[in-house]
Amino acid sequence: MFAEIKSINDECGVFGIWGHEKAAELTYYGLHSLQHRGQEGAGIVVNDGIELNVHKGLGLVNDVFKDAKFDQLQGRVAIGHVRYSTQGEKVYENVQPLLFRGQTASMALAHNGNIVNAYKLRGRLEKQGSIFQTSSDTEVLMHLLKRNGQDVNEETIGNALNQLVGAYAYLILTKKKLYAALDPTGIRPLSIGILGNAYVVASETCAFDQIGASFLREVTPGELITIDDEGIKSIRFTASNQRRMCAMEYVYLARPDSNLNYVNVHASRKQMGKELAKEAPKDADIVIGVPDSSISSAIGYAEESGLPYEMGIIKNRYVGRTFIQPSQELREQGVKMKLAPVRGIIEGKRVIMIDDSIVRGTTSKRIVQMLKDAGAKEVHVRIAAPPIQNPCYYGIDMSTRDELIAANHNIDEIAEIIGADSIAYLSEEGLERAILKEKSLNQGICMACMNGKYPVKEIVEKEVVYSS
Amino acid sequence: MFAEIKSINDECGVFGIWGHEKAAELTYYGLHSLQHRGQEGAGIVVNDGIELNVHKGLGLVNDVFKDAKFDQLQGRVAIGHVRYSTQGEKVYENVQPLLFRGQTASMALAHNGNIVNAYKLRGRLEKQGSIFQTSSDTEVLMHLLKRNGQDVNEETIGNALNQLVGAYAYLILTKKKLYAALDPTGIRPLSIGILGNAYVVASETCAFDQIGASFLREVTPGELITIDDEGIKSIRFTASNQRRMCAMEYVYLARPDSNLNYVNVHASRKQMGKELAKEAPKDADIVIGVPDSSISSAIGYAEESGLPYEMGIIKNRYVGRTFIQPSQELREQGVKMKLAPVRGIIEGKRVIMIDDSIVRGTTSKRIVQMLKDAGAKEVHVRIAAPPIQNPCYYGIDMSTRDELIAANHNIDEIAEIIGADSIAYLSEEGLERAILKEKSLNQGICMACMNGKYPVKEIVEKEVVYSS
Amino acid sequence: MFAEIKSINDECGVFGIWGHEKAAELTYYGLHSLQHRGQEGAGIVVNDGIELNVHKGLGLVNDVFKDAKFDQLQGRVAIGHVRYSTQGEKVYENVQPLLFRGQTASMALAHNGNIVNAYKLRGRLEKQGSIFQTSSDTEVLMHLLKRNGQDVNEETIGNALNQLVGAYAYLILTKKKLYAALDPTGIRPLSIGILGNAYVVASETCAFDQIGASFLREVTPGELITIDDEGIKSIRFTASNQRRMCAMEYVYLARPDSNLNYVNVHASRKQMGKELAKEAPKDADIVIGVPDSSISSAIGYAEESGLPYEMGIIKNRYVGRTFIQPSQELREQGVKMKLAPVRGIIEGKRVIMIDDSIVRGTTSKRIVQMLKDAGAKEVHVRIAAPPIQNPCYYGIDMSTRDELIAANHNIDEIAEIIGADSIAYLSEEGLERAILKEKSLNQGICMACMNGKYPVKEIVEKEVVYSS
Amino acid sequence: MFAEIKSINDECGVFGIWGHEKAAELTYYGLHSLQHRGQEGAGIVVNDGIELNVHKGLGLVNDVFKDAKFDQLQGRVAIGHVRYSTQGEKVYENVQPLLFRGQTASMALAHNGNIVNAYKLRGRLEKQGSIFQTSSDTEVLMHLLKRNGQDVNEETIGNALNQLVGAYAYLILTKKKLYAALDPTGIRPLSIGILGNAYVVASETCAFDQIGASFLREVTPGELITIDDEGIKSIRFTASNQRRMCAMEYVYLARPDSNLNYVNVHASRKQMGKELAKEAPKDADIVIGVPDSSISSAIGYAEESGLPYEMGIIKNRYVGRTFIQPSQELREQGVKMKLAPVRGIIEGKRVIMIDDSIVRGTTSKRIVQMLKDAGAKEVHVRIAAPPIQNPCYYGIDMSTRDELIAANHNIDEIAEIIGADSIAYLSEEGLERAILKEKSLNQGICMACMNGKYPVKEIVEKEVVYSS
Repeated sequence: MFAEIKSINDECGVFGIWGHEKAAELTYYGLHSLQHRGQEGAGIVVNDGIELNVHKGLGLVNDVFKDAKFDQLQGRVAIGHVRYSTQGEKVYENVQPLLFRGQTASMALAHNGNIVNAYKLRGRLEKQGSIFQTSSDTEVLMHLLKRNGQDVNEETIGNALNQLVGAYAYLILTKKKLYAALDPTGIRPLSIGILGNAYVVASETCAFDQIGASFLREVTPGELITIDDEGIKSIRFTASNQRRMCAMEYVYLARPDSNLNYVNVHASRKQMGKELAKEAPKDADIVIGVPDSSISSAIGYAEESGLPYEMGIIKNRYVGRTFIQPSQELREQGVKMKLAPVRGIIEGKRVIMIDDSIVRGTTSKRIVQMLKDAGAKEVHVRIAAPPIQNPCYYGIDMSTRDELIAANHNIDEIAEIIGADSIAYLSEEGLERAILKEKSLNQGICMACMNGKYPVKEIVEKEVVYSS
Repeated sequence: MFAEIKSINDECGVFGIWGHEKAAELTYYGLHSLQHRGQEGAGIVVNDGIELNVHKGLGLVNDVFKDAKFDQLQGRVAIGHVRYSTQGEKVYENVQPLLFRGQTASMALAHNGNIVNAYKLRGRLEKQGSIFQTSSDTEVLMHLLKRNGQDVNEETIGNALNQLVGAYAYLILTKKKLYAALDPTGIRPLSIGILGNAYVVASETCAFDQIGASFLREVTPGELITIDDEGIKSIRFTASNQRRMCAMEYVYLARPDSNLNYVNVHASRKQMGKELAKEAPKDADIVIGVPDSSISSAIGYAEESGLPYEMGIIKNRYVGRTFIQPSQELREQGVKMKLAPVRGIIEGKRVIMIDDSIVRGTTSKRIVQMLKDAGAKEVHVRIAAPPIQNPCYYGIDMSTRDELIAANHNIDEIAEIIGADSIAYLSEEGLERAILKEKSLNQGICMACMNGKYPVKEIVEKEVVYSS
Repeated sequence: MFAEIKSINDECGVFGIWGHEKAAELTYYGLHSLQHRGQEGAGIVVNDGIELNVHKGLGLVNDVFKDAKFDQLQGRVAIGHVRYSTQGEKVYENVQPLLFRGQTASMALAHNGNIVNAYKLRGRLEKQGSIFQTSSDTEVLMHLLKRNGQDVNEETIGNALNQLVGAYAYLILTKKKLYAALDPTGIRPLSIGILGNAYVVASETCAFDQIGASFLREVTPGELITIDDEGIKSIRFTASNQRRMCAMEYVYLARPDSNLNYVNVHASRKQMGKELAKEAPKDADIVIGVPDSSISSAIGYAEESGLPYEMGIIKNRYVGRTFIQPSQELREQGVKMKLAPVRGIIEGKRVIMIDDSIVRGTTSKRIVQMLKDAGAKEVHVRIAAPPIQNPCYYGIDMSTRDELIAANHNIDEIAEIIGADSIAYLSEEGLERAILKEKSLNQGICMACMNGKYPVKEIVEKEVVYSS
Repeated sequence: MFAEIKSINDECGVFGIWGHEKAAELTYYGLHSLQHRGQEGAGIVVNDGIELNVHKGLGLVNDVFKDAKFDQLQGRVAIGHVRYSTQGEKVYENVQPLLFRGQTASMALAHNGNIVNAYKLRGRLEKQGSIFQTSSDTEVLMHLLKRNGQDVNEETIGNALNQLVGAYAYLILTKKKLYAALDPTGIRPLSIGILGNAYVVASETCAFDQIGASFLREVTPGELITIDDEGIKSIRFTASNQRRMCAMEYVYLARPDSNLNYVNVHASRKQMGKELAKEAPKDADIVIGVPDSSISSAIGYAEESGLPYEMGIIKNRYVGRTFIQPSQELREQGVKMKLAPVRGIIEGKRVIMIDDSIVRGTTSKRIVQMLKDAGAKEVHVRIAAPPIQNPCYYGIDMSTRDELIAANHNIDEIAEIIGADSIAYLSEEGLERAILKEKSLNQGICMACMNGKYPVKEIVEKEVVYSS
């Protein structure tokens, strides 16, 4: 359903907990708060001390677990996963965590990110007799880990991770330990929290707030965390690079109440709006934002510019997966779906409309038209991030370069295509200022989709067929 | 699920359309936009020119119609209804529209409001041999209409309506005509729109925007509208009083993008926030609102006061009816459900928290505590409406007087109970200024739940057992 | 799904119990055993001593009650109903028991049969102001009962029943009493049983066996039974006629383990087979029956003739409502659905195939063809009842006269049409001998669909639009 | 639901088709006819010429495929599987066919039987780095096949099969070929049929009748069949032994209309009844069978003995998985579930009750009691097979030896325990006579569960943890 609004989609969120009697239930609530990171499927693997047990399925967290019997998911340790839906691969097998049943050692994996060299590694493994049951790149790590039936420990995990190229945040659960690993560039988010005596790991800190846990620290690039009843241990499996957290996490993907790498997402968005107001001011009557992700930047723009912020577009909360899409005929007659203009606010006004990104331009065009139909005198589009011109190889599902409007058109053309009276984007510097508290040697952001500077070297585009 | 947040609940929304090939589908989209007015059940009756056919069921509009075959709901005329869920009466029979099948004349009814003398009328009818199949007060009108097998027309409808006391917006569908009627005081909203050659009637104008229709005019107090292929006709079935639209529609119930009696709901809420900032200012760091209904007034308060508006509380969008409620134990450990604080925003701040009402106080207490747990230095509660001290007899399901915190405690006690550092309510005058563009002889609002001035005289509290 | 096999369908079964703590649950089990009498919908009304509560829905008993909370259906008295599905009227409203809510007296009705003059009565009632919410003829009795708001008691019920013409077995539940009534000719079955101190009433005695109750006696024609805590009471609301139990109940509709009017159904069917063997012998290798209803008569035929009975046709037990019907193309290629031949038995044999009836002939033709395809050398069809040549007005849904093969073709033509090597029917006298233990003044059977002798005089065919 | 009646359960059925445009649909109908072999889950893998695609799930065939889109399961080749439910392993992962996705070669497996040395093989494979995702022994073959990334062909399949010990019927689907293999002793059934130009393979011939296919021949012990567009090819992967088809397939498991190894199941059962009548005659009034599997043998007993066969027990056809089980209290009061006595038949009679087996004796005891409660004067139990005294290691889920009544009690004790007036079993010789047309060197049956003569040597009881 997001597809109507935006063609950017995150791929997955992970959650893990060690040392709480209600591990599976807390994972359920944690996954709930990470639901925005993936709506295709969800799952939990719990360690009951004897065996790893799994409950997973296609659908939203609520749907998957509505008939779950948590009394059959007993245990003090669990990991969970929410998965984003890509076309054609929406199959149960790919829902994570992946559970591998071994006579001596079972094991479960949950993954957020994208392994750039997965295709190559998988080909090599298959030639050696490995059998794959999913089309997920996550399974590759499992086979690397168990090559020759070796033990799973810090060393073997480190060796296996060093064969992977890409962006990843991994949770690995064995009967004895919970491991958390972040790729050497730290593109995807992964944080550690504390809940009483229990340790919690999650893609976003909002999961900590959801269950009443406190933030402890970030997992750092190239770090492998080991958690067991002895406590928490850290090694580096590789030399760490400058961290380059994905800028789109701040711009669009993460929940506003999360802190990513110590920076609050809502605050960074509001600051994007402020920077944008400085860079691209405009005389107008009101400032509005496209719900939900652009509300914060719209408020920032309004505050900086002194113009009133208004609720010019409303989002229908009850639109769901069972919603019957209006026919083309009815749509042309004006039947709305997810977003509706507030005519009483818009009519006769010069509107500054804040959005966080333009991908193909079709949605923006529709929204601008909707505002004009509702009587807006002028619509000035302001995008709280630089233009998206390149595909992402690190776990975000964007359109191909051919479809990216900003890769194929200059700013005036874009304004014309979407029907805006003017358009302006935030600069790269403005985005960096809004996100990074201080620019330092070990703190940076990945803006590859905007500026083409890919932080991980090996990229073979046609190989990228699987992601988690 | 609203019950967690608030103990005020609207009761029902109605929608009707005459003269469009896709009458049932458009009613479906219209009901969708009125979903916030009732989540218990939904239904559509369509006139296919030969017979009235019904599709209805318990649940959200999407759930009820997910398997509907609209090709079996052909016809150019339809009415629809969404119903609010009250405890214990959640049965299929009460879902509207009610359809009565007659050999010579079938008929359907959809109703928003509450008939104060329904119990008395029903008793009298039963003694005369009338048989009731629902516990809804809506059925009473049907029996009044058909007494002695008389024809249904403007005159007989007017006579029947004149026996009703209370607040109501009625849609009546026969094979030949669509009638819309509003009670003599106009407490509940009802508007007329145009879509091409078709006429549309709805509880809120957001339904017009949803389907691309234009607003034509309000139905006025004591007016009976008749729509057929000849066009639209109006009579008065009683002398009209000063219109007294329910203030809570503006404060809490209606969608912000609707215009009620020519006043935009979001704009009125923002104005409530501004009036509140004037009446009850406070030195603080940030202004936040309780989602969703208090966001507009929080923005208004911020704008008037010059303090920054921040997104201090986030609402989990994926909480639904299948959500597994956390156990008491987990809740005490801090597991959140619907609302979560944005710690990165709240921490160390003096917060002005805008809410639209306090009913029993339990939710407010929980939210204030949540903010303090998230590190708020001070929490100053500002309510964008006067205290609720009396029950409503006109179609809103509030707690009884015993449960209303403001009926039993003064302002200092309330502050202490909910744990706020200070608390203030908007005055009645402030609320009137925010809603009414001009105070005139024929424009007023009903604030009975706040000031006890009931606009309809006959109230016998114990009789009020049924409502629609 | 029965439609494939047969075009005869029963219409409804009723069950009632007075005086057991688990009244609703026992009704559930009772309805379960009556499931063959109706698969469209099912419902239970239970009297909890204060109020009548209902749980009903469309679908099989299991489906309707799978989420039922029997702890919310407390009470010592209940009635239930299973309803047969007719095309076009498969709506929730028609599912019984019908519950009428009154301020002073609620009431529920369950009905098996057909009221011949329902249309006329309903028209008269509507003209007097009665409002109907269903298209079921059952509702007519309710309005007759409550005319002028009168009390419901033996006298008023008797008066109301005397206005009805047709075949009916009625259960009427008020807060104080449970009534059971049978039409003056006793066409439909209705028996009384005892379970400890409780009384049970049911359409078939198999419901007594299901719950461990013992048979007490039949309800007799024109009798009104009243059950309450004082015990059981009987009056006659009309002079009784000779009982004329529907022959098709024995031939096809009832469960073989039921006793109808003191005669076991399986035993009567086996006797039909024996009579048939005497009347229409044939030299052949094996005798087979069409499952399920013709197995008993096939065994009887085999026993009488000395030929071996074999299982020549098997019925696929897992065919259900979600079964995906094979396309025409696949069906022509030989894909079977419900019935399959046992090739190992049939091949090279001269087969006597026993069936209980031929309605339109299409199913018989398909079965004969199937046997021949499986290698049968000859197929001799023997029907364990006389030809069906007339419609039923008393509650069985048959085809119209135009469609009845035996109404339009002689026996040789029928054999040719269905592809049988020979065909023979049981005589009327043979059927009577098989069913009636002794032919007496007050014991007879209704064979109107076979011989056109309708036991109830008033029949106006076009009026017959509603049945239960 | 079978568990109530019997504690013997088959484990799985397989179906495959090569060369028909509607391969997936025909597999659906084929699986439907094999539904009695497994109700836990079902699946189909179809080869669309480019890729193998799977649709599978927990539940009955109808449930699993009710939302299947067969237009997305295009292809001329498919295999399918129905799986029996064992306690605790009822998970999606184990539902077959298992699909393994490889970059160069995908592959699917469907299996009926039990691999005796699966645990040992799996342990060895895991030590070499193999990763298992199911707890099914079927997965072992896959890993054996793909060791070292070798090609899958007749030779490698033969080598892999030669490492397996046990009873199995395997279907293996690659992109290019469909393989069918039977273990060296031929314990489980597997037949080949023809439908036009297409080849069909199935566990039972009833699947051929279901889709209109003709039987071609049996797969023989130790044979590997290869089917592709060139036609059908056969090799032997091992020297064949005397075939020892499982006797319980005839006695209880298979459908009566199937021919197993050229012998019709119904006919063999009827013959068991006749042999039993010769071996254990008894003066009585009627012969009855326990539905469904003992009806044939009861008819045979009746025919041989000259006593009348009667329908003394009826099976409730609508009992399903959603059936609410009666509480202990209600059961004690006599509420029946699946089987009900026909009182009108049983009362006052001396009854010979034919059943096919007694496992733990609890069900038999309940049925005998039920007959006595229904008025049977005497109940003489006759079992149409020898006593079951040993566990099965070849794919049938029986109770352990401790629970088998005949392993722990002599015949008089059993009669007393189940409350029968007398009891007798068929002899081993009688069973052989009934099943085998001629006793020859290469035709035998496995009666290990009766006589302890296990045809496969290697049996290590504790290893047997997985079966398919």
